[in-house]
Amino acid sequence: MEFDIYDIKYCRATGEKDVTFKVLYCGICHSDLHLIRNEFESEYKWASSYPLVPGHEIVGVVTEVGSKVEKFQVGDKVGVGCFVGSCHSCDNCANNLENYCPKMIVTYGSIYYDGTTTYGGYSDIMVADEHFVVSIPDNLPLDVGAPLLCAGITVYSPLRYYGLDKPGMHVGVVGLGGLGHVAVKFAKAMGVKVTVISTSPNKKKEAIEHLGADSFLVSRNQDEMQAATGTLDGIIDTVSVSHPLLPLIGLLKTNGKLVLVGAPEKPPVLPVFPLMMGRKIVGGSAAGGLRETQEMINFAAKHNITADIEVIQIDYVNIAMERLSKADVRYRFVIDIGNTLKSSS
Amino acid sequence: MEFDIYDIKYCRATGEKDVTFKVLYCGICHSDLHLIRNEFESEYKWASSYPLVPGHEIVGVVTEVGSKVEKFQVGDKVGVGCFVGSCHSCDNCANNLENYCPKMIVTYGSIYYDGTTTYGGYSDIMVADEHFVVSIPDNLPLDVGAPLLCAGITVYSPLRYYGLDKPGMHVGVVGLGGLGHVAVKFAKAMGVKVTVISTSPNKKKEAIEHLGADSFLVSRNQDEMQAATGTLDGIIDTVSVSHPLLPLIGLLKTNGKLVLVGAPEKPPVLPVFPLMMGRKIVGGSAAGGLRETQEMINFAAKHNITADIEVIQIDYVNIAMERLSKADVRYRFVIDIGNTLKSSS
Repeated sequence: MEFDIYDIKYCRATGEKDVTFKVLYCGICHSDLHLIRNEFESEYKWASSYPLVPGHEIVGVVTEVGSKVEKFQVGDKVGVGCFVGSCHSCDNCANNLENYCPKMIVTYGSIYYDGTTTYGGYSDIMVADEHFVVSIPDNLPLDVGAPLLCAGITVYSPLRYYGLDKPGMHVGVVGLGGLGHVAVKFAKAMGVKVTVISTSPNKKKEAIEHLGADSFLVSRNQDEMQAATGTLDGIIDTVSVSHPLLPLIGLLKTNGKLVLVGAPEKPPVLPVFPLMMGRKIVGGSAAGGLRETQEMINFAAKHNITADIEVIQIDYVNIAMERLSKADVRYRFVIDIGNTLKSSS
Repeated sequence: MEFDIYDIKYCRATGEKDVTFKVLYCGICHSDLHLIRNEFESEYKWASSYPLVPGHEIVGVVTEVGSKVEKFQVGDKVGVGCFVGSCHSCDNCANNLENYCPKMIVTYGSIYYDGTTTYGGYSDIMVADEHFVVSIPDNLPLDVGAPLLCAGITVYSPLRYYGLDKPGMHVGVVGLGGLGHVAVKFAKAMGVKVTVISTSPNKKKEAIEHLGADSFLVSRNQDEMQAATGTLDGIIDTVSVSHPLLPLIGLLKTNGKLVLVGAPEKPPVLPVFPLMMGRKIVGGSAAGGLRETQEMINFAAKHNITADIEVIQIDYVNIAMERLSKADVRYRFVIDIGNTLKSSS
């Protein structure tokens, strides 16, 4: 399925609590590709609805605010991540975990309060309730900051929640893609020792010299994996293709935590005995709430954490998707919406 | 494979740090049956070695102590659980988690420091290092107390470690057997609301009226399970036959914890997406360290928590194993060793 550039305004008029912003950059997340191809329907019963406008790593500049908007004004640099609505009344919402609200409205392909379908950031303009908009500090460049809104929060949140953010800890990061490379940067900024675990030996130099990882394990090298048995306090596993969990569980210390943030199409087998014999856990995590997303963005700005990106023009997006499906990107495509997508209106 | 009653002394002479005790009762744990039948070899590479003397829920009265024993004296009521040795120098041992020591020596079928094979509690006498012996308070009867040394600590420890011990919490207990029925009692004593989840509707009355559970779910009843979606803070899953995890994960609230304490012969599939979408975890737990085992025994004595047992004579043990394999016991067989196993010496 290829993209067309639609010549239609999909966004609503600015409501009283809405922020409207001109989209300048939008990252391409691997789940955009899954949803374009309707790959979540069979396993997760999450059917894509078409037309679909992807994009949930969206940054831009505010052009209009509603009468009751309190946090933003015209000219502010802002971002929107994976979701744009939630119920505001459940326990999750009350605990700033809008990302786990059962009525959470995702940024595209969901039904909004008003009955319309939501559309994402591969678009020249965006309207969102201010609650779901984050502020981008001036010192965080918009292009390299965009991927933090999904890739960044997706790894930052579990590092915090699962307590893998304590200086001196030793954390593994599985997969050195869009999520993995920022996971290394966040973990290092937290003072954690980081080991990258990858199937690709040729990523070792990059991981250590460029991203600052402390060590590197080739997951297919049994001797290396064996030698690292019981050395990690936790692992952030960013890989969304099927892979065995047993070798990763083996790397954990007693009480170690394997956190899965990528959903493979086929769920893996859970080796229960190794889990029991070290009181280990396998946990999940998905994005983060708004408060934590803002905290993550501020942390990134403070510690100069940005994504490594390849900026593309909007008319390159179908080629980018093909390359993404082959993991041929270092590490995130970001669409230069502002300069290359022209509104017809 | 049937048991013979061996006419041999398998135990060593009392060492300077050893406690020797006359065994009075020994519980029959389901893993005794697995190990008798060598059922852990293919999946877990844990081969049984024969001759094998099972039994790791052992209580009795001290008959002799070594010269350097500090905690016990002749006449004391004592117990030994799942293991009898560990390295005393690793991180796990330093943290009172001898149960996760890589060099932990299990109570039977393991090789002891002196090179001999360890033998369990289906025996008239037992010798153990005092570090691995717990004191049984006077008000805890020995027969109903014996199963606590494995079944009890196996469920008590994860209730504590995973924080499922807070008054007002709502915890599920899957499986109403040897482990499950004491899990209900411990959780209730901690002030937790308990829902039993079982395949057997006919256990409902028993679970609620006799064991004090608050509610009961028939796991095969999809309407009941659906209605209970998102209601549990955690689950202690005691079932050691293969069963799907997805329905259990569905019962958990956001941040909920599914703890597996029984190892099925075939590892289950892990539904990653549902885990991610509620930041849920699946964790393991195996027995408990010595300090916690003593704490558990003291807690049980204080709250009058005992196992519901069927006392059997030693010559009934092969029939008991057959019945256990069909789950035909309410809830634990305990062998009356003291009155029915006569030493030949």
